[in-house]
Amino acid sequence: MLPVEIIKKKRNKKSLTKQEIKFFIEGYLSGKVADYQMSAFLMAVFLNGMSEEETFDLTEIMLNSGKIVDLSYINKVKVDKHSTGGVGDKTSLILAPLVASCDIAVPMISGRSLGHTGGTLDKLESIPGFNVNYSIDDYKRIIEKVGVVMIGQNSDFAPADKRIYSLRDVTGTVDNLSLITASIMSKKLAEGTDAIVFDIKIGSGANLQNQDESRELTKYLISVSKKFGKKAIAILTDMNEPLGYKIGNWLEVEECLEVMNGKVANDLNKVNNVLSGAMIYLGDKAGSIEEGEKIAEQKLLDGCVYKKFLEIVKEQKGDVDYIKDWKNLKRAKYSKKIISKKDGYINEMNAFKFGLASIELGCGRKKIDDKIDKLAGIILNKKCGDEVKSGEVVCELWAEDEDKIERAEKYINDCVIVSDKKSQERKLIIDIVY
Amino acid sequence: MLPVEIIKKKRNKKSLTKQEIKFFIEGYLSGKVADYQMSAFLMAVFLNGMSEEETFDLTEIMLNSGKIVDLSYINKVKVDKHSTGGVGDKTSLILAPLVASCDIAVPMISGRSLGHTGGTLDKLESIPGFNVNYSIDDYKRIIEKVGVVMIGQNSDFAPADKRIYSLRDVTGTVDNLSLITASIMSKKLAEGTDAIVFDIKIGSGANLQNQDESRELTKYLISVSKKFGKKAIAILTDMNEPLGYKIGNWLEVEECLEVMNGKVANDLNKVNNVLSGAMIYLGDKAGSIEEGEKIAEQKLLDGCVYKKFLEIVKEQKGDVDYIKDWKNLKRAKYSKKIISKKDGYINEMNAFKFGLASIELGCGRKKIDDKIDKLAGIILNKKCGDEVKSGEVVCELWAEDEDKIERAEKYINDCVIVSDKKSQERKLIIDIVY
Repeated sequence: MLPVEIIKKKRNKKSLTKQEIKFFIEGYLSGKVADYQMSAFLMAVFLNGMSEEETFDLTEIMLNSGKIVDLSYINKVKVDKHSTGGVGDKTSLILAPLVASCDIAVPMISGRSLGHTGGTLDKLESIPGFNVNYSIDDYKRIIEKVGVVMIGQNSDFAPADKRIYSLRDVTGTVDNLSLITASIMSKKLAEGTDAIVFDIKIGSGANLQNQDESRELTKYLISVSKKFGKKAIAILTDMNEPLGYKIGNWLEVEECLEVMNGKVANDLNKVNNVLSGAMIYLGDKAGSIEEGEKIAEQKLLDGCVYKKFLEIVKEQKGDVDYIKDWKNLKRAKYSKKIISKKDGYINEMNAFKFGLASIELGCGRKKIDDKIDKLAGIILNKKCGDEVKSGEVVCELWAEDEDKIERAEKYINDCVIVSDKKSQERKLIIDIVY
Repeated sequence: MLPVEIIKKKRNKKSLTKQEIKFFIEGYLSGKVADYQMSAFLMAVFLNGMSEEETFDLTEIMLNSGKIVDLSYINKVKVDKHSTGGVGDKTSLILAPLVASCDIAVPMISGRSLGHTGGTLDKLESIPGFNVNYSIDDYKRIIEKVGVVMIGQNSDFAPADKRIYSLRDVTGTVDNLSLITASIMSKKLAEGTDAIVFDIKIGSGANLQNQDESRELTKYLISVSKKFGKKAIAILTDMNEPLGYKIGNWLEVEECLEVMNGKVANDLNKVNNVLSGAMIYLGDKAGSIEEGEKIAEQKLLDGCVYKKFLEIVKEQKGDVDYIKDWKNLKRAKYSKKIISKKDGYINEMNAFKFGLASIELGCGRKKIDDKIDKLAGIILNKKCGDEVKSGEVVCELWAEDEDKIERAEKYINDCVIVSDKKSQERKLIIDIVY
């Protein structure tokens, strides 16, 4: 077999055998296939696609390129959640302790902020001392002890994905359903979970901005999960406006602490509860997603989620006192209030542009080694559908220097649309697929 | 501008501006665009195509990546020929001295054997001492002195093409019309010619095996030539059977010497004469291609082509005595006669398979650094349309070791089809486009 022949076969729209995909991926790791051959192959896959069978084979080969954790020694169902990424999407921080407090194990491996979307690891690291880098042994120890663990991608998991992903990023081959599926699933399958709930974001702030593609991805993710014997539910949720009232790393932790302490942030609670409900259902602690949702609501009220979250912070070396002190607001140096210029109703708060503004404020990265400002971010005083008067504050920008606020403001001016008439409310939970 | 954004634009089937193509190609040469980005780009171009405008821009940028020779000091029209490559295709060796003897300058830069097709440089190097590597200054000096020069690709010409071509070869991105056009034309335009005759091969032994693609390539080559102010004619010729009676490096030189000395090898003469006729017409020494053909026929009879060829050999350090001794047959160590098993008419002599057989015999290369056996090759005793009796010799294989003959024989058995009825003669000159 020659690498170039496999590239040509995909280039000519032919299906690849498992053996051919294996030769190509393993050849890449061993150096027999060069970077420039992999990137030509990725572009051919991007443009000519892969069947479900090929996607399954690719996932399995990438999974087997690294270690696969066996969590069978834990006598609980293991359930994880994966979100395709959004703006203000902080549900992991609430549902991980929530579901863990239902006697379900939550082995959660998360990512960093990517483009305009935030990342769970960056949010957790806004808690002083919080460690997200653990060996597989520590990972196994923590999940056994606490029932939940929240760490970053371990380099022992699916190393093929790590190398291929960095190549996709610089060769315009990221947004392909088969490549996305294999990338997500090879890592999820390595972490030892029994079941997965997918949060598929749809709308301006989602990574896949086209609803058809999102539905196609849903199909791929569910199908590959099942082929590997994992239970899976996908929940399609709206990402046209930021989720909740706060965007930014510490600001999002703070909002989660509010919710864990009884505050209701409408859309955030709704999305969190349906995801948690699905996880509780897959964890065999409820007879349906709806029943799971009710359990989730109850858990948020009785304080045990907050308690479990403090347990996670303590175990993963975070400053528990800093968390307990959350009511004592921690804010960046500079701020600016954004004022409505007219009376009316807020009909749009473009999540994508809020995401770009938050990068400018210092919440995300433009280059891989950019430093993140933990306290920077945006606080929304209004959400879509709210009435607003001229002169009223719509949102507040926070940053560590004034230039950043100025740059962010340019995006914000386009973010919010105020109209005379209130437009129809968007459906927050668009669909549930399993 | 970011390299990845240009890749994405072509990936999304958008046209690139000249500035974008320039940024990408120049960035590649300066190291700002990585190999793996270039190969992803090439695959996107391969699958999504380039317009004629983009192809023209790409050619110009690749041309400007190196030196461009100015031959205006030579007071003759400069005309070159380019063939898309075939088996037994030795016309360059005849028409270069032929056209030069008509007071037209022939600046000829040729290639080496590639896949199943032969290469002019390898044929010339079968003449002891013949040098094909000259600096631009020597190139200019020789063409002024002899009126013709036959050398290899100078690394000063279109260096972008050289680097991109080696990447295309290992990433499955060779056979794309725009990339082929830019590659051919950037080199042809650098050599300082005024006009070009293209020999577009069609049939089993051609590199592009699909006639529609060949016609499309013809359109691109003519159009790009004209945009650069060069006169151009394309002649589409049949390459279903090998051209002439001999395949192999020295064997082809020998056959050309026969033709230069009055022997007529039917199809070889026909193709040579029409190509020469078109060159003579473009060189302003005939009022039409037909008139040029008649001049070409005459030149072959009066001995001046052979004289001019000896002049080239002498100037380029080849052994003139070795050439003059051509009637004293030079043959490889081992040979095998291939015998017809039945009576009938030869209806097919598959050029592609003859090409593969000739590689096995040692005429071509499987790997870039394979050594070539100068005397190895195949002599056809019959051609398509000829009658053959059972037991009669169809062709002879020649090689420097017996294993090579054995390996070649496996291909040859499939090459020749003998039928009871004589099939219709194929059109040798399929079309003339200008």
